[in-house]
Amino acid sequence: MTAVSWSPPSLLALLALLLLGAFSPAPTAAARSSRHKPFPLAPPHLQALRQQHRASGWGGKYITAADGSSSTAAKPFTAHYFPQELDHFTFTPNASAVFSQKYLVNDTFWQRPGGAAKAGPMFVYTGNEGDIEWFATNTGFMFDVAPKFGALLVFIEHRFYGESKPFGNDSYKSPETLGYLTSTQALADFAILITSLKQNLSAEAAPVVVFGGSYGGMLASWFRLKYPHVAIGALASSAPILQFDYITPWTSFYDAVSQDYKSESLNCFSVIKATWDVLDERGSSDTGLLELSKMFRACKTVKSVYSFRNWLWTAFTYTAMVDYPTPANFLENLPAYPVKEMCKIIDGFPASADILNKAFAAANLYYNYTGNQTCFQIEDGDDPHGLSGWQWQACTEMIMPMSISNESMFPPYTFSYDDKSEDCFVSWGVRPRPHWITTEYGGYKIDKVLKRFGSNIIFSNGMRDPWSLGGVLKNISSSIVALVTEKGAHHLDLRYATKDDPDWVIEQRRQEVEIIQGWIDQYHQDMAQISS
Amino acid sequence: MTAVSWSPPSLLALLALLLLGAFSPAPTAAARSSRHKPFPLAPPHLQALRQQHRASGWGGKYITAADGSSSTAAKPFTAHYFPQELDHFTFTPNASAVFSQKYLVNDTFWQRPGGAAKAGPMFVYTGNEGDIEWFATNTGFMFDVAPKFGALLVFIEHRFYGESKPFGNDSYKSPETLGYLTSTQALADFAILITSLKQNLSAEAAPVVVFGGSYGGMLASWFRLKYPHVAIGALASSAPILQFDYITPWTSFYDAVSQDYKSESLNCFSVIKATWDVLDERGSSDTGLLELSKMFRACKTVKSVYSFRNWLWTAFTYTAMVDYPTPANFLENLPAYPVKEMCKIIDGFPASADILNKAFAAANLYYNYTGNQTCFQIEDGDDPHGLSGWQWQACTEMIMPMSISNESMFPPYTFSYDDKSEDCFVSWGVRPRPHWITTEYGGYKIDKVLKRFGSNIIFSNGMRDPWSLGGVLKNISSSIVALVTEKGAHHLDLRYATKDDPDWVIEQRRQEVEIIQGWIDQYHQDMAQISS
Repeated sequence: MTAVSWSPPSLLALLALLLLGAFSPAPTAAARSSRHKPFPLAPPHLQALRQQHRASGWGGKYITAADGSSSTAAKPFTAHYFPQELDHFTFTPNASAVFSQKYLVNDTFWQRPGGAAKAGPMFVYTGNEGDIEWFATNTGFMFDVAPKFGALLVFIEHRFYGESKPFGNDSYKSPETLGYLTSTQALADFAILITSLKQNLSAEAAPVVVFGGSYGGMLASWFRLKYPHVAIGALASSAPILQFDYITPWTSFYDAVSQDYKSESLNCFSVIKATWDVLDERGSSDTGLLELSKMFRACKTVKSVYSFRNWLWTAFTYTAMVDYPTPANFLENLPAYPVKEMCKIIDGFPASADILNKAFAAANLYYNYTGNQTCFQIEDGDDPHGLSGWQWQACTEMIMPMSISNESMFPPYTFSYDDKSEDCFVSWGVRPRPHWITTEYGGYKIDKVLKRFGSNIIFSNGMRDPWSLGGVLKNISSSIVALVTEKGAHHLDLRYATKDDPDWVIEQRRQEVEIIQGWIDQYHQDMAQISS
Repeated sequence: MTAVSWSPPSLLALLALLLLGAFSPAPTAAARSSRHKPFPLAPPHLQALRQQHRASGWGGKYITAADGSSSTAAKPFTAHYFPQELDHFTFTPNASAVFSQKYLVNDTFWQRPGGAAKAGPMFVYTGNEGDIEWFATNTGFMFDVAPKFGALLVFIEHRFYGESKPFGNDSYKSPETLGYLTSTQALADFAILITSLKQNLSAEAAPVVVFGGSYGGMLASWFRLKYPHVAIGALASSAPILQFDYITPWTSFYDAVSQDYKSESLNCFSVIKATWDVLDERGSSDTGLLELSKMFRACKTVKSVYSFRNWLWTAFTYTAMVDYPTPANFLENLPAYPVKEMCKIIDGFPASADILNKAFAAANLYYNYTGNQTCFQIEDGDDPHGLSGWQWQACTEMIMPMSISNESMFPPYTFSYDDKSEDCFVSWGVRPRPHWITTEYGGYKIDKVLKRFGSNIIFSNGMRDPWSLGGVLKNISSSIVALVTEKGAHHLDLRYATKDDPDWVIEQRRQEVEIIQGWIDQYHQDMAQISS
């Protein structure tokens, strides 16, 4: 951990922190080697590139990813690349460099413009902090509803993730390159790409609805607020847009995680709460670390007790986030109601059993539900979805203060802006702008601010998701509404429908479809009226 | 004029183009030597600077400008300087450089927080393309209404103008520095400065209303749309936010100028229309230029006939813009209804008189109404308000296509995006992003887009102002409204009231006050309600 003090791992990642050992200045090898399709800097003229892009079309043919990893087997989308400018908000010489932004398209059900019926809408997923194919695969809701709406589906990859790395292999090298990884630039990317695509498709009149989950949900709601002329509405699922500054109590996230476990079993909660001190004590010597490495089936001997802490921490925290009512494979392969399952495992031990055995067995559910793992990469987890850029974002714009109260099941911790700034400077050579997000996007008194401003946003949340407390949980106006389910978890509503879905999620999705249909109908009515 | 082809001068400037000879790659000497108060780059830590700024206070003492030009004589405001970051939308190493942004304050009438009554509002002028003292001086409306509202007045200087030059003397040197002169950065500057000021003044609960005229009006309306959490409403006077892309017919501006003159006298219109060919013919030789220089009382011999053309063009065009019903001194000192006065001068000549004498006499009204000028700087006009940065903006974001129809009183001209791009590349080493403004801020079908989105904007226009045709001239919703006067000119409503004001401008201002009072009352009502 070098000079950087230990912080709760979730401070670093909104959605998933699979790179627990990476809290250090240099990006991990995994990040460096991740696949990409870089566009050379100082490219030919942008307009020429855009014309090429237009001429290439996007229908029909599937473009294999640069590393050949994408098979031509049945994926429900095709991949395309848009020439995007590096910096939309300055005109310095670097600003006009062009990179290749990946987007996915499914036009199977699209009611194209020019027919007898009205053109179908464009449903656009505003990509978040990982490769876009992963998000598309986990946003089955859009595929499920496309036929009903005759919708074109588009999933746009967020800059600096997946194949959309502006500087290729060097993208994560330093603030000189990473500096262009910001939410405002990403939103402008979306606006430009959508506008261009609509022109290319002669679909200027087609209404656009944006969708996103987690950070992608934040982006979707902000996009509707900042670009109402591009998107007529947004479904922002599990979007913790109020998890900034002093808006939401800093302890709420870990209090909510703890409550999830406590709600299943007080013993389960107490065992986890007692784990940390025991772990620290047993891991305080090299002998202890060796023993723990065996007990936790580490693939190689772990050098820091913090690595065990982070590994368990991740298991408990992310299981709470994805406490879905059906089996799912988002972060990891898990059974239905995995928190309950974890607690069953813990509660199944005799009270006298070694507490670390209990904790390991619970974590084993998260990391190894399928039983395929013979050992665990406890110190250097892999990053299959390329999420490591989030650590930069969490050190610049996305400062979500989180403290841990004495009442939680985690070791107490008090967030400090100053410490955060120092840590980020050591890690990345950059200092956060901790109040920027609320200055740029608002958040304080959001119910008052948006009561008479803006329209057509659904904020959906499931209260089992600890991020829900940083979300919008009450209706703000007749068209900025909150859909809350008591038992839902992290953007559950965006997942494919399954035969085992409980009624309440079926009902939530039904409401979402009904509201979105209302936006589209309203849009067509308004457009049909002659401007007075 | 070097290799750059001639273009109508008003293509280069929204508000005023006094630097007609400056359509060349290098900034003028006037621009380079204009006063400034640069903050060194690589400054101490931003937080420390902000704390210093806070500790310095802003009430009471007047801070003399760096060049000593500001006398301590009664100005209705004090000047202050805020530590502002260079780039809000990236985190590259350059982004965190800090510069000193000037703002003016008048707190004479402010109902401060903490008293028995509610805190008064903050009325903020969103500065445009010149030094802020000039705009403050020409926005008397805010001073006139401050007592009624108990308002704090703040006028914020736009980055790269006046004393707010991020790179001091080098600010206009190249795209490396000028690249940071964009509207989006300016809006973020405003948001940060206002938010910080409210904290410093313990006035977080005070509602903010933004005001602006011309480009400043565009900024005010965009600010309300992009930062509704910072400003509860905007008065956008003479804001041609629809003068982009293909929204407004490209010939509208010069058609409107022409109509202003035609409405006074057909002879006046015809004389001006006939002027250009005669001028070109007579200026086609060195002898001719010498004769013209004498006739036009040039201080030194003019080298290009284009300079005469621009000089006359400016006089006719800007007189139309400031065709105020009372004497005023905004661009130049002028009598009431100056277009009528110009036409009287032209019509007063015998029909047989030299047409260039007629044109000169009319222009003399614009440049020399007070009779102080013994000769005219026709080739290198001065730039007393520091407007030259607009030429950069007009080559990057602010691409307002303007063609000139055969029916106008100016020589026909057809705008071309390609030519514009080439000219800008030659002049500034930068290429425009001609569709960026409509992508970032919208504009197409604005009545439909904002019918159900946004609130609390007044778009005021006077139809004598040729910019009015690029403005919002019809109500969009119950709270996004258009106030249009048939006889008004460029942001007339923002000027100080005078004893000679006609009833219709008194009524326009009364409506503005009433509407703004409604916003503030609504705000207080909403805030008094407990969040449900």
